[in-house]
Amino acid sequence: MAHIYIYSPSGAVRDRAAFRRGVKRLESLGHEVEVDPSALDSWQRFAGDDATRLAAIGRAAASGADVALTSRGGFGLTRLLPDLPYRQIAKSIDKGTEFVGFSDFTAFQLALLAKTGKISWSGPALCEGFGPLGSSDDASLKGKAEASGAGQDGPDEIMLACFDDLIHGVGEGTGWRLPADSAKLGLEGLQARHAPLWGGNLAVLVSLLGTPYFPQIKKGVLFLEDVGEHPYRIERMLSQLLLSGVLAQQQAIVLGQFTDYSLSSHDKGYSLAKVVEWLRGKLKIPVLTGLPFGHVPTKVLLPVGLHVELLVENREALLLWGHIHKH
Amino acid sequence: MAHIYIYSPSGAVRDRAAFRRGVKRLESLGHEVEVDPSALDSWQRFAGDDATRLAAIGRAAASGADVALTSRGGFGLTRLLPDLPYRQIAKSIDKGTEFVGFSDFTAFQLALLAKTGKISWSGPALCEGFGPLGSSDDASLKGKAEASGAGQDGPDEIMLACFDDLIHGVGEGTGWRLPADSAKLGLEGLQARHAPLWGGNLAVLVSLLGTPYFPQIKKGVLFLEDVGEHPYRIERMLSQLLLSGVLAQQQAIVLGQFTDYSLSSHDKGYSLAKVVEWLRGKLKIPVLTGLPFGHVPTKVLLPVGLHVELLVENREALLLWGHIHKH
Repeated sequence: MAHIYIYSPSGAVRDRAAFRRGVKRLESLGHEVEVDPSALDSWQRFAGDDATRLAAIGRAAASGADVALTSRGGFGLTRLLPDLPYRQIAKSIDKGTEFVGFSDFTAFQLALLAKTGKISWSGPALCEGFGPLGSSDDASLKGKAEASGAGQDGPDEIMLACFDDLIHGVGEGTGWRLPADSAKLGLEGLQARHAPLWGGNLAVLVSLLGTPYFPQIKKGVLFLEDVGEHPYRIERMLSQLLLSGVLAQQQAIVLGQFTDYSLSSHDKGYSLAKVVEWLRGKLKIPVLTGLPFGHVPTKVLLPVGLHVELLVENREALLLWGHIHKH
Repeated sequence: MAHIYIYSPSGAVRDRAAFRRGVKRLESLGHEVEVDPSALDSWQRFAGDDATRLAAIGRAAASGADVALTSRGGFGLTRLLPDLPYRQIAKSIDKGTEFVGFSDFTAFQLALLAKTGKISWSGPALCEGFGPLGSSDDASLKGKAEASGAGQDGPDEIMLACFDDLIHGVGEGTGWRLPADSAKLGLEGLQARHAPLWGGNLAVLVSLLGTPYFPQIKKGVLFLEDVGEHPYRIERMLSQLLLSGVLAQQQAIVLGQFTDYSLSSHDKGYSLAKVVEWLRGKLKIPVLTGLPFGHVPTKVLLPVGLHVELLVENREALLLWGHIHKH
């Protein structure tokens, strides 16, 4: 079906069993999977030193694959930004390669958008997206995860369907049900049109502010997610976007999933919901929540840089980008 | 000796015993301590809601005190920045009030510098600086800390001496011994002159980048510290300062103490030292380490916004600002 190139631009792959399961699963879906020679390299916490990872990105761009999929996130792209082969990546996108990833990959996506205007996809990475152990996996796919009893449900069905849409070039948008607390916000009938969709991991996105790798997007729809960040840190990051004027320049903010943090006894009622409430009080534009995107299995694929429509009808939010013609 | 005004612009004070010990200790040093009426307020994780803390800052500025000292850091100043009474604070500084604090207080200090050019002091906060239990404390000063056996040495002597210098207006600079690994860096003979000293907590400082509260300082000496941040986060924050051009515009970077983080098995040799090495490779200006400043007891006081000289002689670094005339 599709030629999928797996490479590692960020953190070293430690869970090799998940990596192998991910590759086999893509193959069992009928895809031709090509694994970059340094995909499993390890140097400090990175998947190879900076030159190694830059070369891997270059090979992904030169692969002629339909999809260039990161093995995982982690950390490592920020330090590569000045040296990314932007022109080569842009050319490969023009020829039909879709770059897919998330988390640390946000740095790649936003820098690419800032430097070339090219579209990439926020979506799964190989290990976390396609690597989860499934109950029907045969013995060859089972690794350490089995012993720990982790993830017996395999890859998420919604993510798989969105990925399939991307492969076939038939995705026309995505939708989700807004949380109950959205009812009183007067979002019904909301229409944002011709809005560049952009965003990704909040911490990574904010870490580009003030640098040449932060895209200057006006009247966009900005989506954000994060993992392992206490709400006060989320507030501090949102503050930076607020005080820099970035948020007010958008048509809407869409919050995805913020997961894996712990409140403490010191918080005394302070919470992520309070942060969202605070943010809404500071902005005239709508702040939607509940987008199925983040460090969670159920994750839609989102085209960073593409113009979209955002509509709210009967508590359903719709993000529409129409048919994307394949090359 | 001095009139010291204690107020809480950031997080709620939870360790009231440390607060009381701090007040008593300042009094035993001969100072007149005035405690703001909302210094012990609590709302969510903050020392009162936003209006309460803004009012407290206004009272500190109106107090006519020699020193306005924060009770503690935490989090809470970022969201107040658009509403701080900058003119009133600047006026009180002109009349002789020195504002002292650190950590979250970095937001106050840098915004003040950006908006008014006025000098404030990075130094202790009441609870952590003057609140530690000492072995000679009488029963009335002993609280919960005794049961836990924490901090039996009382306030740090060097911090106390620096604070005393500030009170008497006799401080003319500070110095520290560079770590052994600095020997091969060719720092000997380094002279930075007429350099605005600025900095503070790295995470807080970086969170102002791209906003109107980030001071535009050229040819300065930038000092940084942080607590509870993994080296990869420190790298990501330093990257932001690097890629935004802020670092290269300075005469020198001075790193204080980075404490309370844990490396994991995933790091495999990645460390804070590697981050510093990476940074040095990206910069032509010197990066000094070992400044006694951060979330540690032994902490010097540093005038944010004042022009300084930075000298290195025989592995000793000297940061000199000459005599500051008291009003």
